[in-house]
Amino acid sequence: MRAFGLLMLLLSAVVTVLPGQTDEDAFLLRRIHTAALTEGKAYSWLHHLSEEIGGRLAGSPEAEASVHYTYAQLEDLGLDQVWLQPCTVPHWERGAPEVVRVLAGEGHQERVLKALALGNSGASGPEGVSGRVIEVRSLEEVDYLAEKVEGAIVFFNRPMDPGEYHTFHAYGKAVDQRVYGPAKAAQYGAKGAIVRSMTTRVDPHPHTGVTLFPETVDPIPAVAISTADADWLSAQLKSGQNREIFLYTDCRHHGRVPSHNVIGEIRGSDFPDEVILVGGHLDSWDVGGGAHDDGAGCVQAMDVLHLLKTVGYRPRRTIRCVLFMNEENGLGGGLAYADSARTSGAFHLAAIESDAGGFSPRAFSFEADPEVFTDYMKAVHQWLPLLEPYGIQLQTGGSGADISPLKFQKGLLAGLRPDSQRYFDYHHTAIDRIDAVHPRELALGAAALTSLVVLIDKYGLRAEPTSSGSR
Amino acid sequence: MRAFGLLMLLLSAVVTVLPGQTDEDAFLLRRIHTAALTEGKAYSWLHHLSEEIGGRLAGSPEAEASVHYTYAQLEDLGLDQVWLQPCTVPHWERGAPEVVRVLAGEGHQERVLKALALGNSGASGPEGVSGRVIEVRSLEEVDYLAEKVEGAIVFFNRPMDPGEYHTFHAYGKAVDQRVYGPAKAAQYGAKGAIVRSMTTRVDPHPHTGVTLFPETVDPIPAVAISTADADWLSAQLKSGQNREIFLYTDCRHHGRVPSHNVIGEIRGSDFPDEVILVGGHLDSWDVGGGAHDDGAGCVQAMDVLHLLKTVGYRPRRTIRCVLFMNEENGLGGGLAYADSARTSGAFHLAAIESDAGGFSPRAFSFEADPEVFTDYMKAVHQWLPLLEPYGIQLQTGGSGADISPLKFQKGLLAGLRPDSQRYFDYHHTAIDRIDAVHPRELALGAAALTSLVVLIDKYGLRAEPTSSGSR
Repeated sequence: MRAFGLLMLLLSAVVTVLPGQTDEDAFLLRRIHTAALTEGKAYSWLHHLSEEIGGRLAGSPEAEASVHYTYAQLEDLGLDQVWLQPCTVPHWERGAPEVVRVLAGEGHQERVLKALALGNSGASGPEGVSGRVIEVRSLEEVDYLAEKVEGAIVFFNRPMDPGEYHTFHAYGKAVDQRVYGPAKAAQYGAKGAIVRSMTTRVDPHPHTGVTLFPETVDPIPAVAISTADADWLSAQLKSGQNREIFLYTDCRHHGRVPSHNVIGEIRGSDFPDEVILVGGHLDSWDVGGGAHDDGAGCVQAMDVLHLLKTVGYRPRRTIRCVLFMNEENGLGGGLAYADSARTSGAFHLAAIESDAGGFSPRAFSFEADPEVFTDYMKAVHQWLPLLEPYGIQLQTGGSGADISPLKFQKGLLAGLRPDSQRYFDYHHTAIDRIDAVHPRELALGAAALTSLVVLIDKYGLRAEPTSSGSR
Repeated sequence: MRAFGLLMLLLSAVVTVLPGQTDEDAFLLRRIHTAALTEGKAYSWLHHLSEEIGGRLAGSPEAEASVHYTYAQLEDLGLDQVWLQPCTVPHWERGAPEVVRVLAGEGHQERVLKALALGNSGASGPEGVSGRVIEVRSLEEVDYLAEKVEGAIVFFNRPMDPGEYHTFHAYGKAVDQRVYGPAKAAQYGAKGAIVRSMTTRVDPHPHTGVTLFPETVDPIPAVAISTADADWLSAQLKSGQNREIFLYTDCRHHGRVPSHNVIGEIRGSDFPDEVILVGGHLDSWDVGGGAHDDGAGCVQAMDVLHLLKTVGYRPRRTIRCVLFMNEENGLGGGLAYADSARTSGAFHLAAIESDAGGFSPRAFSFEADPEVFTDYMKAVHQWLPLLEPYGIQLQTGGSGADISPLKFQKGLLAGLRPDSQRYFDYHHTAIDRIDAVHPRELALGAAALTSLVVLIDKYGLRAEPTSSGSR
């Protein structure tokens, strides 16, 4: 696209009139977006979290370092209060690097597959385990095979559907294999489990993530292999040959250990007991930098408080940033936070989570108790003309895992929904690093969160304009 | 974001009901999107254009190679007709690599700046030119300085505004310096011109692009330097020191030469004389691979025809893919195409261009003659519930440079509007290569174009349902 002609035409498209909205609100949202793009701190904070601290699995020294770092950064913002909230989290460790080898045999060379042990995987013991590979496409197939998988390595290989527009939907249709597959295999006596990585791409990056073993099932070695290796392995098996695989995992369970949520707030001038929460989760997997998942959500939530100060907005309600611990493998932080809300009685008028990556924001997704939901959505939809110029639509649907335990309070729960096309390229991998995050896209997410926070703060969530509102 | 809980909530958001739309249309658009994501050819075609052929400036051997390659690929699709349409284009060449050196002096080392000559730049002669640098922020400032710039190198350094949400808007507010600045400087006797690259980032990549010299002004050497070097140079000058710059450019003007648009079509079964055009421009700048600008638009337009065949859709109207030559520095192809439409009288019910990068599609922007525009927009808005589930909004505004000469026919003109946040990282640079393009984002643009083409083809552009429509 060249310089002139078309450009002048384009400009006519972007000067959007906001019907029925005050100039004051439009001006405030513009200031917020400009401030986020030019003075936002999200990207530099994320650089530290991802590149200096790195992967922050709950219970790890890195998770503790991230608690201290974000606490100090929130302190530097000059907020009304910053504190650590105790919680307990499971402490699982990968240990020494996992090894997955397809063994030599019938004219084949030995081949090493790129793999990552899944969170909660068992250890193989120092000698490792080996067995015949049995490929399946579903949990049901394991039930059908039943004792035939005894002593084998079960290979779950149903791909995420690349034909789905909604990548989270494709994830939802495939991830049962990772979460429940290894336990299912173990119940029938399998020695180990291999899961095709959760991504629509065929690439060399294994994706870890949680797997669950009921208390009655001893954890077996369970690993994810890259989609490229999964395709290769499947082709081998399809050619009619039995192949044996060797698995070595060094995973350790240390039980539950103490950790913390990190919280900072600006107290409201009119309604200090009404809280508008914005948050993400501070923990990540242990590989990579946890940049998109969910360093991005944390630094955006922190930047909301910074941007409010930058544009000189004084909130009527208490605006609270919460960085939750242990979303990835237990929700220890989210549950502890909800418990404390139950005890203190502080009402969360709204809670907004960013946990779908630091990409260009496209929507907020809302949920609430049915008793109040319709009224809330009426209020929120009034603001669509203010948010649409920044590419933000309003949807109904889920919000976020960490804030979902707050639903009992009958406040509004919301999730930021960025563009999801690139998310599963990085999710739970060693390449979820700062260079996968675009500074402008990250900043616009912080601006979107700040904009919604300000509108809820200014007007509340009743459909009619409040007396103090100018609309 | 972890596996369960939130996921199940998310799924409730993505199963969108389409009020007032037939299941048939929703099913067709779903098939189109699935086909684009799983069987689309856009990415492999783009790989060839960007990496095998490379930069394709009008008049160059690479531009000719891209004509032959895309013609052959369209032929392979088994269309009803594929042809080359003659046009003439200016042939400007960069020649030997440009050199920009800040000369040693007053305790300073010599420093080489990263630069690219602008399209239409003059040559410096074999000895190069040198002169004192004068930094300005606007064309008006040059008028104010007037003969004071005689013998100097004028340095245009007003940045693209990083605080603008709309990157094309920021571009529009800064690009006059590149397009008109060097000629303005030349009019007052400057020996050369340097322009800060058109990007909001501070990075080491110079961005080329067209500059215009009126016939009455002899072209002077005119180059873009990277934003990082522009900041450095400005800081040097602000410290109060005069600095001299040496410029060497080897640019050559060869006058106008023959070239071609590449066209392929599927003839309509009911209204073969009504054309729905979809296109992009085949030429690019000579550096990099022209991947986003505008290889992406070309391969998406080609994929529209391929996807129609893949899903088995038989068009009622003629669907025509046009790959225009010479958008970047003359519009030779677009003007020749409009001339031929004028001569043949073929009515273009709609023309749709993709020339804003291969990023996630977010909207179509529409324009037309005022006499027909309101009716067209009523028709188009009926389809919003079908397009919104794929993240597509409908806007009024510009369409595309190549199709804009068709406006006289009073058809509908549309432009695909992908997410623009990353576009100016790559625009007119050596890094506009295939690895800057995400396969899913590119494919979804092709799916969006195909969806709009199918809806216009099926229902026409009257607001009321046509007799053949099922709605």
